[in-house]
Amino acid sequence: MDSVATKTFPAEALHEFCARVFIYFGLSKSDATQAADVLVAADLRGIDSHGVARMSSYVGQVSEGLINPKPQIKLLRSTPSTATVDGDNGLGLVVGPRANQMAIDLAEKAGAGWVAVMNTNHYGIAGYYVLKAVAHDMIGWAMTNTSPIVAPLWGMERMLGTNPIAIAFPGKNEPPIVIDMATCTAAYGKIEMALRKGEKIPEGWAMDDRGYGTTDPADVMAGGALLPLGSDRERGGHKGYGLAIMVDLLSGALSGANWGPFAPSFAVAQALPTRSVGKGIGHFFGAMRIDGFIDADVFKSQVDDYVRVFRAAKPAPGTTGPLLPGDPEREAERIRRDNGVPLILPVVEELRAISKSTGVPFH
Amino acid sequence: MDSVATKTFPAEALHEFCARVFIYFGLSKSDATQAADVLVAADLRGIDSHGVARMSSYVGQVSEGLINPKPQIKLLRSTPSTATVDGDNGLGLVVGPRANQMAIDLAEKAGAGWVAVMNTNHYGIAGYYVLKAVAHDMIGWAMTNTSPIVAPLWGMERMLGTNPIAIAFPGKNEPPIVIDMATCTAAYGKIEMALRKGEKIPEGWAMDDRGYGTTDPADVMAGGALLPLGSDRERGGHKGYGLAIMVDLLSGALSGANWGPFAPSFAVAQALPTRSVGKGIGHFFGAMRIDGFIDADVFKSQVDDYVRVFRAAKPAPGTTGPLLPGDPEREAERIRRDNGVPLILPVVEELRAISKSTGVPFH
Repeated sequence: MDSVATKTFPAEALHEFCARVFIYFGLSKSDATQAADVLVAADLRGIDSHGVARMSSYVGQVSEGLINPKPQIKLLRSTPSTATVDGDNGLGLVVGPRANQMAIDLAEKAGAGWVAVMNTNHYGIAGYYVLKAVAHDMIGWAMTNTSPIVAPLWGMERMLGTNPIAIAFPGKNEPPIVIDMATCTAAYGKIEMALRKGEKIPEGWAMDDRGYGTTDPADVMAGGALLPLGSDRERGGHKGYGLAIMVDLLSGALSGANWGPFAPSFAVAQALPTRSVGKGIGHFFGAMRIDGFIDADVFKSQVDDYVRVFRAAKPAPGTTGPLLPGDPEREAERIRRDNGVPLILPVVEELRAISKSTGVPFH
Repeated sequence: MDSVATKTFPAEALHEFCARVFIYFGLSKSDATQAADVLVAADLRGIDSHGVARMSSYVGQVSEGLINPKPQIKLLRSTPSTATVDGDNGLGLVVGPRANQMAIDLAEKAGAGWVAVMNTNHYGIAGYYVLKAVAHDMIGWAMTNTSPIVAPLWGMERMLGTNPIAIAFPGKNEPPIVIDMATCTAAYGKIEMALRKGEKIPEGWAMDDRGYGTTDPADVMAGGALLPLGSDRERGGHKGYGLAIMVDLLSGALSGANWGPFAPSFAVAQALPTRSVGKGIGHFFGAMRIDGFIDADVFKSQVDDYVRVFRAAKPAPGTTGPLLPGDPEREAERIRRDNGVPLILPVVEELRAISKSTGVPFH
């Protein structure tokens, strides 16, 4: 991002703008605030692709009637520790937090809780959800399937989403360990950024539309695909492919949502999938009480010890030594809470256009 | 394996030999049979490194009193859907199946069941366990931590095990989808095989003892380390590192077992870790009733559809097209059930030595 011009905004200002825009489009005040929370959490944590940069797309879908601004979330089935809910085609930013809270509530009583969600839409960053469970001394899990952009190993079509998985473990005095990762090698946002900068992408990230590896980001845009984590067979591409399937089956097939190549597209303008095998996309949330397994204080002290042991590890040549999962996002949040959120100018323009069309002020 | 001399044995003969050897070393008949089941399942499924090739090591540990042949597994804590058990330093091949069954039993009543296991030892292939849940129309999960051989991203020491994760989903008319993967780029067994054949290993698999990438398998043996799935930062090595931590915390820290660099070694001859932060190594098993989320028949039909859609995907150039996770192991099992299990000669020699010292016949 460094060489790209940006304009910086206080997180609070972005939050207020998004909430007011969501209210303008018919969301209740509490849903609008919740949706803004999830979006701005992404910007604060440095995951720029999943924050207010997506407002334009969300707003487009709500205003065109493709997303329901007032979803009535329905419980379809439950046991003491599992449930499935129908998100009523609401914003994932609204449906996701409610379903995640249901998983926490189930865990409170049964020790662990799992909620599959169908008929929903993109839910922002997975890391947002797992930190909610952590605040209850639980281990949080979150997954979602997404529209297809990743090729299966040995395939040459876009058949899987970036299908992220997140899991978080609370520490006692140290911060939580927060794993939040797409199951492909590199995020789509990195391809877009390379294209913008006129740079090549590394070998192992993508294939062109004929199924050959490419280092030209334009090839991905022109019908190519991203590669699963591991890139190729030799370096474990079957593992990233397997993880993407895991997320897809838990989020999509288990909830009654669409899966694989049939997951509906995020952006309104993109082509619709050829078949429907369910409703909307799907999420999968989990929460486990730590004291369902071990004294919570003992566990959190072990996490502290874990963090310190790995921080003290001998650095590989040319590096500053191992980080812990969640460190980069935490560091971004520390800086951005103080200094504001830098937005690239195309995003600023999009927000200004939304401001103009809705009358919600944006400075 | 193709160019290495082998001798082939019927799976039943290997099973009987292992069971009788385990009985010789003090296991009950049912535990011995169970342990042999897990071991031979690995050989049948083509995961040669985790089958009877490990008998010599298991037998060494039991005969030296390092592993308890008659473990009394104790329930330490439970909720309706979680439990922690102390494996009483038994063979993982005995403790693992019992704890896995507990997870299935919990799921039967609560919808989902999760069992963390401490004070246990290596448990064979993760894929064995998850197929048990599948037989109950459940989604099965299995993880274990293992002794350190993998470097954290940006570190240069062995601090994590190969820490596998497995998950399986039943199909209706199609076979189950079985994901069973170490969280490092390549299995240690592949390094050993390359060394044996005098071949180089691919870039991205390993580092030498100074922290530099290497293609010489001897460097790994001489104090180097394997790399996490993704290999380096650019290609997502932080993701494989994160997955290894996830498995380690769920299996180790959550159960009260050792974790990270402190997980005890598998082979008796290896150096003991410098600190103890728990008891033995740890496993983590899960089971989820499919009908806790959706009609089981509907889900299994969706899995069938999933399998067919991915099999029909356009092949990438030079490949036969996408496989489904579990296909290679299933194909190996089909062949080996008919034709027997090929063992490399050093393994045959080890089994003959066990036969000689125990008097259990081996042909």
